[in-house]
Amino acid sequence: MMTRHGERRGALRALLRDAGVGALLVIDLVNIRYLTGFTGSNAALLIDAGSDDASRFCTDFRYLTQAAAEVPDLERIIDRPCGPALLRDVSGRVGFESHVVTVDGLTDLRDAGPALLAGLPGLVERLRAIKDADEIDALRRACAVADRALSDLLEAGGIRSGRSEREIQLDLDHRIRLLGADDISFSTIVAAGSNSAIPHHSPTAALVEPGDLVKLDFGAAVDGYHSDMTRTFVVGPPADWQSDLYALVAEAQAAGRAACRPGATAAAVDAAARDVITGAGHAEDFGHGLGHGVGLVIHEDPFLAANSAAIMEPDMCVTVEPGVYLPGRGGVRIEDSGVVRPDGYEILTLTTKDFLAL
Amino acid sequence: MMTRHGERRGALRALLRDAGVGALLVIDLVNIRYLTGFTGSNAALLIDAGSDDASRFCTDFRYLTQAAAEVPDLERIIDRPCGPALLRDVSGRVGFESHVVTVDGLTDLRDAGPALLAGLPGLVERLRAIKDADEIDALRRACAVADRALSDLLEAGGIRSGRSEREIQLDLDHRIRLLGADDISFSTIVAAGSNSAIPHHSPTAALVEPGDLVKLDFGAAVDGYHSDMTRTFVVGPPADWQSDLYALVAEAQAAGRAACRPGATAAAVDAAARDVITGAGHAEDFGHGLGHGVGLVIHEDPFLAANSAAIMEPDMCVTVEPGVYLPGRGGVRIEDSGVVRPDGYEILTLTTKDFLAL
Repeated sequence: MMTRHGERRGALRALLRDAGVGALLVIDLVNIRYLTGFTGSNAALLIDAGSDDASRFCTDFRYLTQAAAEVPDLERIIDRPCGPALLRDVSGRVGFESHVVTVDGLTDLRDAGPALLAGLPGLVERLRAIKDADEIDALRRACAVADRALSDLLEAGGIRSGRSEREIQLDLDHRIRLLGADDISFSTIVAAGSNSAIPHHSPTAALVEPGDLVKLDFGAAVDGYHSDMTRTFVVGPPADWQSDLYALVAEAQAAGRAACRPGATAAAVDAAARDVITGAGHAEDFGHGLGHGVGLVIHEDPFLAANSAAIMEPDMCVTVEPGVYLPGRGGVRIEDSGVVRPDGYEILTLTTKDFLAL
Repeated sequence: MMTRHGERRGALRALLRDAGVGALLVIDLVNIRYLTGFTGSNAALLIDAGSDDASRFCTDFRYLTQAAAEVPDLERIIDRPCGPALLRDVSGRVGFESHVVTVDGLTDLRDAGPALLAGLPGLVERLRAIKDADEIDALRRACAVADRALSDLLEAGGIRSGRSEREIQLDLDHRIRLLGADDISFSTIVAAGSNSAIPHHSPTAALVEPGDLVKLDFGAAVDGYHSDMTRTFVVGPPADWQSDLYALVAEAQAAGRAACRPGATAAAVDAAARDVITGAGHAEDFGHGLGHGVGLVIHEDPFLAANSAAIMEPDMCVTVEPGVYLPGRGGVRIEDSGVVRPDGYEILTLTTKDFLAL
């Protein structure tokens, strides 16, 4: 039976034939993980355009046992440096990842053998933009860990006045790890009070105060897949401007999700949310794109933004995360991770988007 | 007064004049941090061989405020992509980091302006191998956090039978972060029982059992500098073979430290420790190099190994970490981070190296 990784290599093979190369040398470790399941820190992969039988995987002696377990279905070579080792006796036209290989690295590859090397950037990344069932399952589990960690944090009263942004960050991060995630997805954002108006604020020793908006942007990585979620709370009863701001962003987020369907351009999805915010006179206060792909990397194709050329396809996994930031006062961002389905956007981050007063 | 970053740029300038270029384009973010103090995620730096006045720093709009605070002493440009922006109106011979710039990235740089680009790999890394007083101070504080976290873990009885490797890992990591570190230095190793014979074991759900060796390899990052320390304990009274193994590795580690002096070759330092282990008949059981530089990156020049061409110089910061691994039984590694001083190796990781039975 064809494994999931074998299916992915088969899909890549079709792209290689279109590109007119006999093989592709893959050195990006994320792409190698996608195509083989290998999780070590040093490897290269030569995918033959004809078949897996002529394809080869290389790693160094440290990963001898691990490679046998993770990559049982390809010929394995133990050598280093891995890229040159795979090209040693290869001739003909071979593609390489020109967006990843360094200038010195290309010299080493050229010196390694007689192949005619041709830059072919982004082929594996193009496949990675559409997720298969195993990937969506991993992302769903990553989102569930993040949901659970936040739920536990809230239940424990972890977001309260007198606690610092940094304390809340470390508490949430520790919960994510204790729940069995590989790790957190990215550096967690906790932004309280006027700091919530800074889109990518790094948590500080600043203490949460009564009446503060508190914005949390965080995720869990599970089996290599990265969830991403933002929720904004208020400590104590909200002021009217906070409730109004929250309702506006929630409406924009719902509009973005509703527009996120197969066939829609990424620019149109971005516009659907942005128009709500612009209509309320806050165009200047939403200074970033609407979302991005999530997967083996926390920010990957497709990007949802006005200048994006992407078109939504079924099984793309993307965030929808509008925000409105009022400098010196505070900001609200609401973000889900989800899957583009034939009939619309399926939310994977299930935490409520009601405006919770803590 | 010349800032520390200004001094570093001055030292680089001398290398640029030797290399016959009018400037160096720096895009490696660690090198940029070293030369400017900038900690953001997107930047480029053009160091003019003549003076700082003709040098320029570029980042994007997200880091406008941060760059003004962190890089007050250079002309700043807000643009993206940063590398091409800095080359737009530059002519003459300009060096670039050919070990970092990708093949596609070089095309973009060539298209950006009339400069004659020349690959100059590793110049900043060469400077980074010798630490200045600020760097040694940061590394000392990073080591102190790791010492303290381990001390607290031991005092709390955190290493005990019935606890999993993974639980101990998360406990130690959380302590490091709570003590104010930027983060942990690298993925913490906790290896119990026969797992301690795997040099770079990833912690599992395996439970510590009475009589187990427990090996911890971990560090703290403080102000960007990475500490690295390994200690091996035994749970309950040690067996004779465990005590003998520990004594052997401790002797080898002391021999390595004693040899780590200015003028010594890295190969000779490695040999000093290795000879002790070889003399005891365990040459095959010490399958890695003796140590490596630590700094803004956890593994950096100089590397202490048989095939290393490095020569020890004052103010290099390196680890000394011999290990002996007996497959199926257990292993011991003892590692310090320290500074090469004119009169010998100054240990920065101060936790006892006595063989502690917990």
